[in-house]
Amino acid sequence: MRLRLTPRDTTYFDLFTELAGHVVTGVGLLAELLGADKAERKSISARFVEAEHAADEATHAITKRLNQTFVTPFDRDDIYGLANALDDVVDSMEEACDLIVLYKLEELPKRVSEVIQVLQRCAELTAEAMPKLRTMETLNGYWVEIHRLENQADKLHRKLVAELFDNTTDAVTLIKLKEVVDILEEACDGFERVATMVETIALKES
Amino acid sequence: MRLRLTPRDTTYFDLFTELAGHVVTGVGLLAELLGADKAERKSISARFVEAEHAADEATHAITKRLNQTFVTPFDRDDIYGLANALDDVVDSMEEACDLIVLYKLEELPKRVSEVIQVLQRCAELTAEAMPKLRTMETLNGYWVEIHRLENQADKLHRKLVAELFDNTTDAVTLIKLKEVVDILEEACDGFERVATMVETIALKES
Amino acid sequence: MRLRLTPRDTTYFDLFTELAGHVVTGVGLLAELLGADKAERKSISARFVEAEHAADEATHAITKRLNQTFVTPFDRDDIYGLANALDDVVDSMEEACDLIVLYKLEELPKRVSEVIQVLQRCAELTAEAMPKLRTMETLNGYWVEIHRLENQADKLHRKLVAELFDNTTDAVTLIKLKEVVDILEEACDGFERVATMVETIALKES
Repeated sequence: MRLRLTPRDTTYFDLFTELAGHVVTGVGLLAELLGADKAERKSISARFVEAEHAADEATHAITKRLNQTFVTPFDRDDIYGLANALDDVVDSMEEACDLIVLYKLEELPKRVSEVIQVLQRCAELTAEAMPKLRTMETLNGYWVEIHRLENQADKLHRKLVAELFDNTTDAVTLIKLKEVVDILEEACDGFERVATMVETIALKES
Repeated sequence: MRLRLTPRDTTYFDLFTELAGHVVTGVGLLAELLGADKAERKSISARFVEAEHAADEATHAITKRLNQTFVTPFDRDDIYGLANALDDVVDSMEEACDLIVLYKLEELPKRVSEVIQVLQRCAELTAEAMPKLRTMETLNGYWVEIHRLENQADKLHRKLVAELFDNTTDAVTLIKLKEVVDILEEACDGFERVATMVETIALKES
Repeated sequence: MRLRLTPRDTTYFDLFTELAGHVVTGVGLLAELLGADKAERKSISARFVEAEHAADEATHAITKRLNQTFVTPFDRDDIYGLANALDDVVDSMEEACDLIVLYKLEELPKRVSEVIQVLQRCAELTAEAMPKLRTMETLNGYWVEIHRLENQADKLHRKLVAELFDNTTDAVTLIKLKEVVDILEEACDGFERVATMVETIALKES
């Protein structure tokens, strides 16, 4: 790492850490949703909408800061890209949450909870990585693990889809379930995009 | 706003205004399509293909100009991003138009016309905003209103999808209708992306 | 073309040529898949996974090089964009291949092989274009032809989808087939994005 002779703007790190916190909140709500009854589901979904708004505001704060300041700790495009990648993960998970409620999917295939466990692990690793952007140390393990998890999620997703087609006799239910599991897979891909942005930033700094 | 000591290239503003004009044409054709009979539908769809080609050409003219000139009125990436965001809106609407004809969807749910009314309002606001890029004045109201409309469209879309699943007994018809309403929602999101690009440009200039 | 007074990094050209080679391999495997029996299908799909990993590694090599070197033969963003556009084509085709096996789609509509022929032509043209990035000569014919092929693929795709809805009585089969043909269309769009990146690079150099 290069020696820094000038103090660097630290607010971006705080905002990224905040954003990653909303990701962790979101995946926690998804996990809660799986075991919830009908009455609880609505309140969980409402709490997710709040988390999503908070993530939107943090992302917007990053963009605004970016457009109004000249010196940034990393390339502007990478800051913008990382913020949007984190926000996209929240959006995907909120959409999954909303659809489960909207489609009245009372019983989800067992493997869905396995996918959500992978998402939880991804969210935790991402939240731990954000404050480390300041020093760039020990980030290597993070993205190796995210790529491994994304790979695992991808295999889980393919099995899940095959099982859906084998076990679901009603086409309308199939359409609903497939949309939900596809969006969960999108969220996993989103964590990989976040890790790729972090890797890009780290490589430029090394 | 900063004082401009040098004349700036104005052609981009004209090309953006032209592009936004094709967006307005497109949404008008979508509205026409809803009330049209079978014979008219084909000619409306053909006129949309023409509007889409014209939008492609305007976008291409912007990209070409961008790659061959050194001085641009805003950041190159933002010009490129705005042109593509506008073009994407036209593409989404053309796809919706084409699918309605291709799928022979003679009767669309009532709420679809509400969604198209929101799209029309978005298109008008966008067309009014483009010439204002020259001076950056009074753009604040534009994007606040677009975000409000996108929010409204999102709620409409979720209601529409829930109603589709409740009221459509035939799975094949459901697949067709869902694809059309999802693409209309994509078009709404597209207007928000256009507004975000405009906001980015305005923030940098302020 | 401008005179080059300094030697330029040639490794990017080699990596792009390698990446395009994986695209050609992929589309060849897709063509093989169409005529294959059940036992062969699994091995073809496994070979595609290998090709996709190789493409990932080539893309990663480009990104890494890009982040660690200062002088690049073209704009960094364009190199990054071109690498990712090529990688996306491989990913789309691998997904199509995987779904055909996963969904046990033993008989595909005849027109699918016409789409794959268009993809093969696109892949060959792309592979021929990559080494020409070095001199920028004779690239005009390439992208004109890709745009023509994408247009042709788009028309084929719309016909294919209309026929699917007309001829498929089982909704579940329809869902499977539609997903496969939509992803093949995505791959065609991907070739157009590659050509657009090449055009962008060529325009800046001219």
